[in-house]
Amino acid sequence: MASSTVSFLLVLLFITAVLLQSSSSSPTSQPSDIFPSNKPPRFLGKHSRPIKPNNQQYRYETRFFSQPLDHFSFLDLPTFQQRYLISTEHWVGPSRSGPIFLYCGNEGDIEWFAVNTGFVWDIAPRFGAMILFPEHRYYGESMPFRSREEAYRNATTLSYLTAEQALADFALLITDLKQNLSAEGCPVVLFGGSYGGMLAAWMRLKYPHIAVGALASSAPILQFEDIVPPETFYNIVSNSFKRESSSCFDTIKRSWNALASEGQKEDGLRQLSKTFRFCRELTSVQALTDWLDSAYSYLAMVNYPYPSNFLMPLPGHPIKELCRKIDGSPDGSSILELIFNGVSVYYNYTGEVECFKLDDDPHGMDGWNWQACTEMVMPMSSDRNTSMFPAYDWDYSAFREGCRMDFQVIPRPRWITTEFGGHDIEHVLKFFGSNIIFSNGLLDPWSGGSVLKNISETIVALVTEEGAHHIDLRSSTKEDPDWLVEQRETEMKVIQGWLDEYHKKMKATSYM
Amino acid sequence: MASSTVSFLLVLLFITAVLLQSSSSSPTSQPSDIFPSNKPPRFLGKHSRPIKPNNQQYRYETRFFSQPLDHFSFLDLPTFQQRYLISTEHWVGPSRSGPIFLYCGNEGDIEWFAVNTGFVWDIAPRFGAMILFPEHRYYGESMPFRSREEAYRNATTLSYLTAEQALADFALLITDLKQNLSAEGCPVVLFGGSYGGMLAAWMRLKYPHIAVGALASSAPILQFEDIVPPETFYNIVSNSFKRESSSCFDTIKRSWNALASEGQKEDGLRQLSKTFRFCRELTSVQALTDWLDSAYSYLAMVNYPYPSNFLMPLPGHPIKELCRKIDGSPDGSSILELIFNGVSVYYNYTGEVECFKLDDDPHGMDGWNWQACTEMVMPMSSDRNTSMFPAYDWDYSAFREGCRMDFQVIPRPRWITTEFGGHDIEHVLKFFGSNIIFSNGLLDPWSGGSVLKNISETIVALVTEEGAHHIDLRSSTKEDPDWLVEQRETEMKVIQGWLDEYHKKMKATSYM
Repeated sequence: MASSTVSFLLVLLFITAVLLQSSSSSPTSQPSDIFPSNKPPRFLGKHSRPIKPNNQQYRYETRFFSQPLDHFSFLDLPTFQQRYLISTEHWVGPSRSGPIFLYCGNEGDIEWFAVNTGFVWDIAPRFGAMILFPEHRYYGESMPFRSREEAYRNATTLSYLTAEQALADFALLITDLKQNLSAEGCPVVLFGGSYGGMLAAWMRLKYPHIAVGALASSAPILQFEDIVPPETFYNIVSNSFKRESSSCFDTIKRSWNALASEGQKEDGLRQLSKTFRFCRELTSVQALTDWLDSAYSYLAMVNYPYPSNFLMPLPGHPIKELCRKIDGSPDGSSILELIFNGVSVYYNYTGEVECFKLDDDPHGMDGWNWQACTEMVMPMSSDRNTSMFPAYDWDYSAFREGCRMDFQVIPRPRWITTEFGGHDIEHVLKFFGSNIIFSNGLLDPWSGGSVLKNISETIVALVTEEGAHHIDLRSSTKEDPDWLVEQRETEMKVIQGWLDEYHKKMKATSYM
Repeated sequence: MASSTVSFLLVLLFITAVLLQSSSSSPTSQPSDIFPSNKPPRFLGKHSRPIKPNNQQYRYETRFFSQPLDHFSFLDLPTFQQRYLISTEHWVGPSRSGPIFLYCGNEGDIEWFAVNTGFVWDIAPRFGAMILFPEHRYYGESMPFRSREEAYRNATTLSYLTAEQALADFALLITDLKQNLSAEGCPVVLFGGSYGGMLAAWMRLKYPHIAVGALASSAPILQFEDIVPPETFYNIVSNSFKRESSSCFDTIKRSWNALASEGQKEDGLRQLSKTFRFCRELTSVQALTDWLDSAYSYLAMVNYPYPSNFLMPLPGHPIKELCRKIDGSPDGSSILELIFNGVSVYYNYTGEVECFKLDDDPHGMDGWNWQACTEMVMPMSSDRNTSMFPAYDWDYSAFREGCRMDFQVIPRPRWITTEFGGHDIEHVLKFFGSNIIFSNGLLDPWSGGSVLKNISETIVALVTEEGAHHIDLRSSTKEDPDWLVEQRETEMKVIQGWLDEYHKKMKATSYM
């Protein structure tokens, strides 16, 4: 699995860095070669530096489980080996109904998620819990058809890369594991962040017999169809800049035309490549705007209050830092120099990078792009007035055509809401279902597509003003602000409540 | 669809008429050629007389909807046309949020279910409801690959005949239909009997955003793995005979050895064929015992308190009638004559049949047999002491081998409980889910695998002592006993409660 280290990092954290196929009938007034790009929305940033997981941090065993490729048909298909990480170090075992904490692996190498979900490791001892990190099919080492190359060969081999199949994988794995350990009486608690958080919430809703509750952090389960306005994501990103500095916001907003103008000049791409210090000369302005868009969107997500090293080494409050660079650049700097100074906070905070590299193969097969082109169709627009990004109206036809060209597949844009719901969720789940925490930080651009209000007594929203993308799932640090410490305490209390309720119910009938 | 009239009747109502592959290591002492047979358990009786649905009774329009063959992968497969029946005659429409009553079509021609589910037609006017009867894929006229012959060609073409796919069909159809009618605000109520009742209950649990509640009549969702004892079904059948007459029970119990002995004689099969008036000579005793088993099991299911014409014209309390024949036969009758006199109540109550025909092709492809050999693995045993049928211990290995031989498919006996739950259902659903009625009559042998106790305030069991297989879903008649009238009144009241709750929730937020 030589390519997995690179690939998982390309898909790691929600970023809709780039939008859709340019259309000649586009209603926007942007230079046609800037925005949108011809890539479907994606969760995770592609311009991030691969950081090898530090496996010294947590102790676990790596195992494999044989899964049917298709849970929902009886075609005679080969099975595949699903990887999962397991730690029973703190588990109190079946005799004391020790809980099982299961993180719903999302679109990347599961080791990376294990290392970056410190919360589960931090609290497992207190609960006497087993820890499980099953990997999502088609990512990391959990490859159908024995290799990534075979699994990603074409639309036929990729066709079983869906959320429903992944949930069924989790269900089958945990059922089998519990039986083997005679641990049928041990309650399972689900965890997940980002797409993994969506899986956790959906899993609790679809498989209540498998898990007693779910902590779904930064899970934009409403980012489909017209449930939330398509401008939401970019508006939140933009507001995160505006709240720091309106001149910073204005500079970025003005920069796109400046970039386009520069690019159209003779020798323009060479000049841009020089200004932005790319190792190799740009082949299009689009590549540069994608690179900038990624940085801004990603910064909004990891706009944490303390220094972090999630995908990039960053200072605390990195957007504030970026705006400080832009606003504080020497008088007489060109707008492109301002932008470069700003974006360097993201791409080169340590100052070690001499020149920047771009992804060479933007059309390569990629798991999340496949998912976005099939089920995970998340409409995105950029509002002419409120967004600092180039204006763009969601164009499904163009999107569909892009998917047809890239993968020879036709998206099913209404399938997710048909299968999992989303419309009127507050009515639907008011008297249905229980035990889900939707946790969100309002700085996170994905919070706009998530559940931000309590639905019932047991399906609750935990919202933090200053939180960014699933910060609560990260390991506790000494710099954690009070609100974060409190948020995690609340989460533990709610989880404890689920377990207490479970034990009470089991006890009540065992005496009957 | 020339063969559909016959085929749907073969699969119509729950009967586990025949059991499993004979095994040389069978722990039973029965003659090896009698019981069990080499057929998997099936829902519906095969020895029933095709009765053409009387379409004059109810007015509806027949339409077709294009469905993906596989909802859970993105293989480039052909779509198929799902048939559905629709009546908007009494629907008050979107402006008044008129409800939609959706019957979850089960393993047969949907017209037959429409005609035999009078309850829905009876109550729709009172609710101002639209009526929908979507057909289950691979049955009736809803054939993938354009014809029954193609759809049933082999395990590959049959592989998409699963409950999950059928539920997704319903979800997609209703979502599309509501959108086309601008009826998104119209609540859907699910109905279903037998396997259709299982689908209704599962649909409410898996798709709460699609339907506000489900009436699941005679739905044995617990008849899987070891949730209920495998002897349950045949014990209930046997008790239905015993409660009428213990000598009747004894006679039937003794008859199997007598049949076997007779069959082993030279000329025995010819004699048996003569005694039982078969048109063509029997080729095995097994064929005869299957025929008898079907009759007894089926009689237990349709042991209605008034004359009925469900699959066969029958008197009220038909088991009482059968036992009267057995117990009242002239002195000196042989045990085989007693059995023949009894079973004639089932197969020839009108006295019009001159000779009996057996199914010529017991190994033919059949939709329910496929489902039983893949997902719907319902373990069945026959207890040596309490059952009047030949003793048999469930033998999964033999069952598996039979499926491999018949369909070249390997069953997934634990899949249904993994996907839909079942174990500890009272704990799992106590604080999860809402708005399901499990209605059962205790005379129905399938009641033993259903939900017979309230789980919560809104997931309730309606149990009638004298009820048989989903009698509540049948059209009201003048002969309805009081308990049946009351049961249906309760059902209507509960359904009205779901709709009131729905309207209240919608109203509450529309003013916000």
